[in-house]
Amino acid sequence: MQLPGGNMLCFENDYSEGAHPAILRRLAETNAESGPGYGTDCFCESARRRIREACACPEADVFFFTGGTQANQVILDCLLPPYAGVLAATTGHISVHEAGAIEFTGHKVLELDAQDGKASAAGLRAWLEAFYGDGNHEHMVFPGALYISQPTEYGTLYSLRELEELRSLCSRYALRLYVDGARLIYALGSGENSVSLPALASLADAFYIGGTKAGTLLGEAAVFPHGAPEHFLTRMKQHGALLAKGRVIGVQFDALFSDGLYEEIGRSAVAHADAVRAALRQWGVAQAADSPTNQIFLTVEDGRLKELQEHVRVSFWEKAGSHHTVIRLATGWATTDAQVEALLPLLKKALC
Amino acid sequence: MQLPGGNMLCFENDYSEGAHPAILRRLAETNAESGPGYGTDCFCESARRRIREACACPEADVFFFTGGTQANQVILDCLLPPYAGVLAATTGHISVHEAGAIEFTGHKVLELDAQDGKASAAGLRAWLEAFYGDGNHEHMVFPGALYISQPTEYGTLYSLRELEELRSLCSRYALRLYVDGARLIYALGSGENSVSLPALASLADAFYIGGTKAGTLLGEAAVFPHGAPEHFLTRMKQHGALLAKGRVIGVQFDALFSDGLYEEIGRSAVAHADAVRAALRQWGVAQAADSPTNQIFLTVEDGRLKELQEHVRVSFWEKAGSHHTVIRLATGWATTDAQVEALLPLLKKALC
Amino acid sequence: MQLPGGNMLCFENDYSEGAHPAILRRLAETNAESGPGYGTDCFCESARRRIREACACPEADVFFFTGGTQANQVILDCLLPPYAGVLAATTGHISVHEAGAIEFTGHKVLELDAQDGKASAAGLRAWLEAFYGDGNHEHMVFPGALYISQPTEYGTLYSLRELEELRSLCSRYALRLYVDGARLIYALGSGENSVSLPALASLADAFYIGGTKAGTLLGEAAVFPHGAPEHFLTRMKQHGALLAKGRVIGVQFDALFSDGLYEEIGRSAVAHADAVRAALRQWGVAQAADSPTNQIFLTVEDGRLKELQEHVRVSFWEKAGSHHTVIRLATGWATTDAQVEALLPLLKKALC
Amino acid sequence: MQLPGGNMLCFENDYSEGAHPAILRRLAETNAESGPGYGTDCFCESARRRIREACACPEADVFFFTGGTQANQVILDCLLPPYAGVLAATTGHISVHEAGAIEFTGHKVLELDAQDGKASAAGLRAWLEAFYGDGNHEHMVFPGALYISQPTEYGTLYSLRELEELRSLCSRYALRLYVDGARLIYALGSGENSVSLPALASLADAFYIGGTKAGTLLGEAAVFPHGAPEHFLTRMKQHGALLAKGRVIGVQFDALFSDGLYEEIGRSAVAHADAVRAALRQWGVAQAADSPTNQIFLTVEDGRLKELQEHVRVSFWEKAGSHHTVIRLATGWATTDAQVEALLPLLKKALC
Repeated sequence: MQLPGGNMLCFENDYSEGAHPAILRRLAETNAESGPGYGTDCFCESARRRIREACACPEADVFFFTGGTQANQVILDCLLPPYAGVLAATTGHISVHEAGAIEFTGHKVLELDAQDGKASAAGLRAWLEAFYGDGNHEHMVFPGALYISQPTEYGTLYSLRELEELRSLCSRYALRLYVDGARLIYALGSGENSVSLPALASLADAFYIGGTKAGTLLGEAAVFPHGAPEHFLTRMKQHGALLAKGRVIGVQFDALFSDGLYEEIGRSAVAHADAVRAALRQWGVAQAADSPTNQIFLTVEDGRLKELQEHVRVSFWEKAGSHHTVIRLATGWATTDAQVEALLPLLKKALC
Repeated sequence: MQLPGGNMLCFENDYSEGAHPAILRRLAETNAESGPGYGTDCFCESARRRIREACACPEADVFFFTGGTQANQVILDCLLPPYAGVLAATTGHISVHEAGAIEFTGHKVLELDAQDGKASAAGLRAWLEAFYGDGNHEHMVFPGALYISQPTEYGTLYSLRELEELRSLCSRYALRLYVDGARLIYALGSGENSVSLPALASLADAFYIGGTKAGTLLGEAAVFPHGAPEHFLTRMKQHGALLAKGRVIGVQFDALFSDGLYEEIGRSAVAHADAVRAALRQWGVAQAADSPTNQIFLTVEDGRLKELQEHVRVSFWEKAGSHHTVIRLATGWATTDAQVEALLPLLKKALC
Repeated sequence: MQLPGGNMLCFENDYSEGAHPAILRRLAETNAESGPGYGTDCFCESARRRIREACACPEADVFFFTGGTQANQVILDCLLPPYAGVLAATTGHISVHEAGAIEFTGHKVLELDAQDGKASAAGLRAWLEAFYGDGNHEHMVFPGALYISQPTEYGTLYSLRELEELRSLCSRYALRLYVDGARLIYALGSGENSVSLPALASLADAFYIGGTKAGTLLGEAAVFPHGAPEHFLTRMKQHGALLAKGRVIGVQFDALFSDGLYEEIGRSAVAHADAVRAALRQWGVAQAADSPTNQIFLTVEDGRLKELQEHVRVSFWEKAGSHHTVIRLATGWATTDAQVEALLPLLKKALC
Repeated sequence: MQLPGGNMLCFENDYSEGAHPAILRRLAETNAESGPGYGTDCFCESARRRIREACACPEADVFFFTGGTQANQVILDCLLPPYAGVLAATTGHISVHEAGAIEFTGHKVLELDAQDGKASAAGLRAWLEAFYGDGNHEHMVFPGALYISQPTEYGTLYSLRELEELRSLCSRYALRLYVDGARLIYALGSGENSVSLPALASLADAFYIGGTKAGTLLGEAAVFPHGAPEHFLTRMKQHGALLAKGRVIGVQFDALFSDGLYEEIGRSAVAHADAVRAALRQWGVAQAADSPTNQIFLTVEDGRLKELQEHVRVSFWEKAGSHHTVIRLATGWATTDAQVEALLPLLKKALC
């Protein structure tokens, strides 16, 4: 079998490889044990305990999904009243890149203007006041929840204060606050982060802790600090989202939340991105979005990009005028010091 | 961590353990390779090639799902016109045990009487003639597809002739024929089976080859012999069913369809079930459904069942009057000769 | 314009003509008044007051729909939790003749065996005990409501005692009780009826009082004795069921519930059907279903049916063996003594 | 019964009264005729013939709905592939004021920037090029149709040339073109209109001719110039949108398209609005949107608006800064010369 990439450096994504070796090892160690299905096994139970502990939230309900779009779809469908939509930044993942998975369940995504991927409390307040001030709002889609991503799709972070302001508005307007944590590990691993897991659990009605982009083979852990919507297991099944061999995700999250592995992966990936950012600063090159996490967005001239791509795999993000492109580099559990060292001269050549 | 079961024999299910060691090994070997997401990697490609070859169907489209209910939901929603329902045996998995996943996508399950889990061509013909003979049928749900399981939920098999008859009716009445192959491996591994993979591919419009119950950590391979519905990848995403790290399933199916592993697992599990059946015959005990595959259904007196369950984990199936219960035993890749030997005397005590 | 039917007698349906003249007159009288839209006008308000009074239920919420399938679809979708289905007789209108309108909103119709169109308390209890007794019921569709029709699709009636027994089971198992009253007027007009409007309002969680089949141009009045589901107007709009010129239905129900018109139409239509039934008894001919309301089901030999249909328009109901057919005759506000007199000899010839 | 409004002038809407007297008369004349249900009667057939003739489109399929949101919901759901959304101006009725009826059927509304209620060919082209130029578009919602309103929600008109440009783009990008004609009558009645009914029928894949806002009690006529989607009657029923007594709408459209009534109502209402516009021009007051149809949008200072509303009922449209409000006046079949004359001095006082 011909493998892709050859000697290419891969900064394309944080889910380009398999699983962190410690996680794979745990799968092997537990492989022969037999247990019941649908997430009722002892591995899932242990993972739930560890997650509740990490969130300082002993009452939380925890359920496991296979992917982020699935988690967003099922959780929002269950949090929202049937007549309500979900507010999200125009750049939010559910607004753009989930193929209409939210609308598929009958709910409109109500868009909020975004800055660097973030919705602001001021923008949210203005939207809500306009909605409830409109005499025809009974003919419109009620807002039932606010969706944000931490970090955002541009790698940026909500501060604790920003999150508290959003929470306060959500409470005033009876919105559920839901946080997409596909890359939450890299928010928690960032030096600029001010929102701990317990803080998140105290502010959000629901969030998920991403595994797929954090070193598991697959899996996302949905956390409901105040308890899950009723009959949530049945609703997961109804959405086609209940895994028969639920243990496969349970074992992995149990490993991820053991022995400091979760913190270690987050710290390491952000440190590698920080090393790239340090070089950028030295070269006087600004990120296209001011990310302090594992993602770096850069504007590159198209000819130089082509050269860069002969050696490095990166993600296309968007066109920036007719001769430039915004690209994204992502680090992850598999990123090594050597890879970053090899990247820097190539990047310098493309940018300076 | 306390493990469940202790010294219990486990015949509860064919998905009670992790993955077949050969599959787990392949995951480890390929773990460090990096590749693109969403099933576009080289492992998925290789798995697709092997599956097409096994089906003798070089034109087939192959997509990977994480579970059976998800596969049934997405595939049927895409095969059916929006105004149509799907015909299925009253005992079909989609009729009973998928929490309304089909109705969730707007389609009615139209029930056909079943015998030992099987719908008959005669029953299907009668249903269709009654439907199209009813002057009000434009006010009713049109039949758009036929769903069958091979083997059925009771472990029984459609013969090639039966399948050809159903196919013929489907063609005459413009129904798509869809086959749920969650345990297809154990049909193919049965001595009584007359429907090969190539035959299935030549008769069905779509089917899936189950992985979860066949020794993978998770995953089902959907096969569309004449090509998938348009934009199928987008529709998977829309249903929340597209895995980011698609390779996780690709690697496993690549391994499952290498070196005769698929055939080996099927044969071995059915052989262990056959050994139990041979003993039953010797004791003069009949199966509750005449299964020649890896599942065995037995009617047990409730007091004896309680004793049996002190040593063996089995599945509750249904009550049979006020003093008896139908239970199910299932063998799988993890079943050993020693386990079967240990089971037999316990079973004899419960049944004779 | 060529009119259909010529000198044919029409017993085909109770909605074959326009509106009762008194209702049409009221539309003309109020035509020039201007008022606000969406059911907030004074005519709708007045109609609501009269309906609440007729139901002896001053707290009831009342909303107007344009048709029965629409009413069933929207009301059940709002009464049911998203993971729940609705129990209904196999012959129930939502089970058979609404083109999957319930499934379109994501809910399964869970079928109960029926006798003469009626579900029994014993059958309901057995279903519920089997469901909750099944260890796998979290993988199945929960029952969230019971749907019954009064009168049923076969013109038969639930007695007050039968309705109380069903209500009692609904309360014990947390089911909402919903009554389809498309032809409720002919239950209330029947000498055998024991369920008054106030009794219905005290037992049901929701029901609708049919207008289309009771002499209005169109319209059904949904009654929620304990209040409607929240934001019900918005949900009607979301389902495409909110009429801009809501007054059109309000005016008609206001007229229908004025001056004893509703009672008069019901009594008159049932009296005409009773006259036919008296003749049948005299001839020794039994109804195919024992209806005491405005519908009469009869089994007719096919050759004679053909002759009958040269003079009378009737509804085809179903085949009864290879040489007979079940037909339905329906009376309504437009049925006259003269029409019944003309019908009887023709019917006698067909049946005796 | 206390009637609303008393001596108030009513310019609030074009659906504030009952039906045009000629239409009501036709309902009375045909009331006693009996006929079959579900739109298969002779009145519906005659109305269809007249509409096909008016559209110069003898092959068109015509179906009747009870309201505009319902028509939009069912038609778009049937025109769109299940994975596709519908493009619409941000101010489009389906984008804002239908309570998410489109999303309820699983489809996203994809918003286009609008000017005076209109989407532009340039804007549409840019959107489509960006979509298909995005390497991730398979993870996004495909555009399946373009929705426009003629006249728009701001009373403005697409010219024939503009419509042809949009059509050309639709053809190039495989979009269906759907036109919401809730107030089409007032486009056709406008002196500035360049799009005839036959032209519309030659350009659109589907459109509806509004009745509710054009003088019927209720009803909208959906026109499919190239034929309706398959099993359209069944799909209407599935959406709860099929009227049992379909004749009620058939009779009205038959009358509306007889004896020049449709043209007469359109001309008369626009003439009354033109009279107001002539006065505005004389006073040097500009419309808030440049409407040549039956709607007039005006910005009024809040104190003066309060005075105006003591004598005239108008629609609130939106706030314009903290001291002004945009209001809407609408004329209709019921508007008289005397009402316009009485309005003008009151309006002058409010505006000058």
